[in-house]
Amino acid sequence: MNPHQRIYLDHAATTPLCGEAREAMIRCLTDVPGNASGIYASAREAKRHLEAARAQAASILHAYPDELYFTSGGSESDNWALKGVAFRAGVSSRIVTTMIEHPAVLNTCRYLEKLGHPVTYLRPDARGRIDPSDVRRALRPDTAIVSVMWANNEIGTVEPVSGIAGITREAGIPFHTDAVQAAGTLEIDLRSAGVDLLSLSAHKFYGPKGVGLLYLRRGLGIEPLIHGGEQERGLRASTENVAGAAGLAAALAVAEKRRTEEHSRLSGLRDLLYERLRQELPDIILNGDVKERLPGNLHLTIPGTDDKTLIPLLDLNGVEASAGSACTAGSFVESHVLKAIGVPSELLRGSLRLTLGRDTDEQDVLEAAARITATVRQLRSSH
Amino acid sequence: MNPHQRIYLDHAATTPLCGEAREAMIRCLTDVPGNASGIYASAREAKRHLEAARAQAASILHAYPDELYFTSGGSESDNWALKGVAFRAGVSSRIVTTMIEHPAVLNTCRYLEKLGHPVTYLRPDARGRIDPSDVRRALRPDTAIVSVMWANNEIGTVEPVSGIAGITREAGIPFHTDAVQAAGTLEIDLRSAGVDLLSLSAHKFYGPKGVGLLYLRRGLGIEPLIHGGEQERGLRASTENVAGAAGLAAALAVAEKRRTEEHSRLSGLRDLLYERLRQELPDIILNGDVKERLPGNLHLTIPGTDDKTLIPLLDLNGVEASAGSACTAGSFVESHVLKAIGVPSELLRGSLRLTLGRDTDEQDVLEAAARITATVRQLRSSH
Repeated sequence: MNPHQRIYLDHAATTPLCGEAREAMIRCLTDVPGNASGIYASAREAKRHLEAARAQAASILHAYPDELYFTSGGSESDNWALKGVAFRAGVSSRIVTTMIEHPAVLNTCRYLEKLGHPVTYLRPDARGRIDPSDVRRALRPDTAIVSVMWANNEIGTVEPVSGIAGITREAGIPFHTDAVQAAGTLEIDLRSAGVDLLSLSAHKFYGPKGVGLLYLRRGLGIEPLIHGGEQERGLRASTENVAGAAGLAAALAVAEKRRTEEHSRLSGLRDLLYERLRQELPDIILNGDVKERLPGNLHLTIPGTDDKTLIPLLDLNGVEASAGSACTAGSFVESHVLKAIGVPSELLRGSLRLTLGRDTDEQDVLEAAARITATVRQLRSSH
Repeated sequence: MNPHQRIYLDHAATTPLCGEAREAMIRCLTDVPGNASGIYASAREAKRHLEAARAQAASILHAYPDELYFTSGGSESDNWALKGVAFRAGVSSRIVTTMIEHPAVLNTCRYLEKLGHPVTYLRPDARGRIDPSDVRRALRPDTAIVSVMWANNEIGTVEPVSGIAGITREAGIPFHTDAVQAAGTLEIDLRSAGVDLLSLSAHKFYGPKGVGLLYLRRGLGIEPLIHGGEQERGLRASTENVAGAAGLAAALAVAEKRRTEEHSRLSGLRDLLYERLRQELPDIILNGDVKERLPGNLHLTIPGTDDKTLIPLLDLNGVEASAGSACTAGSFVESHVLKAIGVPSELLRGSLRLTLGRDTDEQDVLEAAARITATVRQLRSSH
C-alpha cells in the first residue's frame, strides 16, 4: 500500500455517496425540476419520483409507504419523534430514554426537561446494554414515549430493541428508536421489530447528507416539528427534496442487497484490526459488547494516550478516525457514553473509535494497524 | 412555437436547478465525502466547502458569515425563527404578523397561539400592502417578534420591509421576514434592510430543494429547532449538507449577477402577458400592487372560472400554473391572501397565478396568452 494513501476509518461519522445514489440524485437534479406538490405534469413527475423512493424504502424496511416521512436527517427525525409525541401528550408527560443516546436525542430530552417533561435516563451495563426490565420499571401511567437507540454510535453496542418493544407495546406506550447507526448493516424489519417510531439518516448508509426518514406507525398521532404546507401528509412542511429522497432510497437498496455479506466481511476485518492492535499494544481495552455489536465498529481505550493529541497525530499519519461522535468531535468533551458504562476517569481521554466501511479492505486494516501502533508508541515515548 | 411544447409559469412554486448550482453540487457529491464536523483532512475539506458557501452567500447578502445558518429550506427557517424567538421570550410572549403570510409562518403562529402566545394578524390594504403604522400600533411591551414577509407568494406584493424595520428597531423587538419569494429578483442588503431574522429557500432562486438559510443578526438569542450536535455554532444540529450549501451559494451568486437585468426583463414580459390577456379577456382583474410587485408575478382573478377546473385544463393545454401556494395547491382551499385583501367570495375561486422565470421568453408569453385565452373561453362556453 502506498504509504501516502489515507485510510478512512470514520464510517460512523459519515460514508461516501455510493454510485447508485449519486446517479439517482443527478437524474433528479437534472430531469425532475418540478414541485412535487403542484398539480400539473412536471409536478406529477416529481411526485412520482418522490413516491417511488418512498415505496422502495418502505419495501426494504417492511413498512407501509404512508408510514415513512422524509426529513432533513437523523437529527431532525429524532427531534421530531420526541417533541412531536411529548408535545401531543401534554406538558408534564414523561420520557424514558438512556444515558448513552446520540446528542440529537439527549439534548432534545434535556430541552423537554426544561419545558417540564420529567425524563428518566436509564444506565446501561458495562458493555453498554440497556436491560429491558429497567425500561419496564421506569414506565409510569403518564409516560409519553420511550426512546432507546438501536445501536450506539460510539461504542457500537446493539440494544435489545425487540425486547424493549415487547414491553412498551404491552404498556401501550410509543417506542422510538434512533436506528441511524444500525441502518445499512443490521436488518431493520419494521413488521417484526415492534417499534412505533424510528429515525434514519441517509448519509450513514452511503446516501446523501441532508435527508433522512422518520418511520411513524399508522395511527400514531404526532405534532409537526415544521409547521406550514400540506407536504408529507400534512405532517412535515417544506417543498419536497426529491433528489435527496431518490438518493436515500437508492443507497438503502444497495445497502440492503449487500447487507448480509457486508456484515460478515466487516466483522472479519474489524476482528483482524483488533487482533493486530492487541498484539502490538496488549494493554488496549475494547469498549462495548463483544457479540451484540455493529460489525464495523472497534472502540478502544488506549491507556497512556489522550484523544486530543492522538486523533490529530493519526490524521498526520494518514488515518482518519475519531474519539466519539462527530457531532461533538470538535469540542473534545469527555464522552457521556464512556462515563455511563463506567470507564474510569483517568481512561476517559484515551479513546479511539475506528469504524470500517464498504471501501475498507484487508490491506487498509493491516496498514492502519501498523500506523496506529506507531502513532501510539510515538505518543507514549514523548511523555 | 411547437404547439406541444409545455410552458412553465409556476416559478413561484419552484425553479429548475441552474447549471452552476448543479455543477457545484455534483462536485461536492463526488469529491467531498467527509463529515464537516470531523477533525481530519477529509473533514476539513468538507468544512472548507461549507464555509466557502456561507462566505459567498454572506457577501451577496451583506451579512457576516456567522449570521447565516444553513437549514433544510424556507419552511424550517420560518419555523425556527418564530418558535426559536418566542420560546426564548417566554410562554405568553406576543407575536405580530400578517393575515397574508406563507403557511410556514401562518401555521407556526397558529401553533404558537395554541401554546399560549397571543398573535396579532395584521390586515393588508386591498393591494396586499401592510401599513407600517399598523405594526407600530400592534406592538406591546411583551411582543417577542414581528414577522412580515418581504414579498407575497400569491399576489406578488412587496411589503415595506424597511419601514417596518425602522419601527421594530426603535421598539427593540426582533423583526423576522420571510424573503423566500424576494430572493433572486429583489435586492436583499442585510446591512441596510434593518431586519433581524430572514428566511431564504434555495430552490426559489434556481438552487436545490432541501436547503435554505436563516439569517440571524449577531447578538440575537434563539432556541434551536433541531437540538443535538454542535453544528452551525451549536444552533442547528445535523451533519452539514455540504452539497446543498454549495448549490445554494452558487445559485445565489448567479441570481445576484443577473438580478437587475432579470428584474426588468421579467417585468416587461409580465406586463406583456397582462396586456395580451386583457385584450382578449377584458374582465380579468389584477390582484396585488401594480408597482410594488415581484417582477415575474401576474396574479389574476378571472370571473366566471373556477381554478379547480381552470388549472387542470391549462395543464392539458400545456400551461403549468397554479391558483396560489403550491404548499396547499393539492387541496384547493380558498386563498387566505385573497380573502384578506377583500376579494368578494364569488370571485375567490377564479384565481390564476402566473409566475415567470429565467427560462421564460417572449414567445412563451405570447403562446401562453393564447392558450390561456382559449382555455378560459372553453371553460366559459361550457357553463
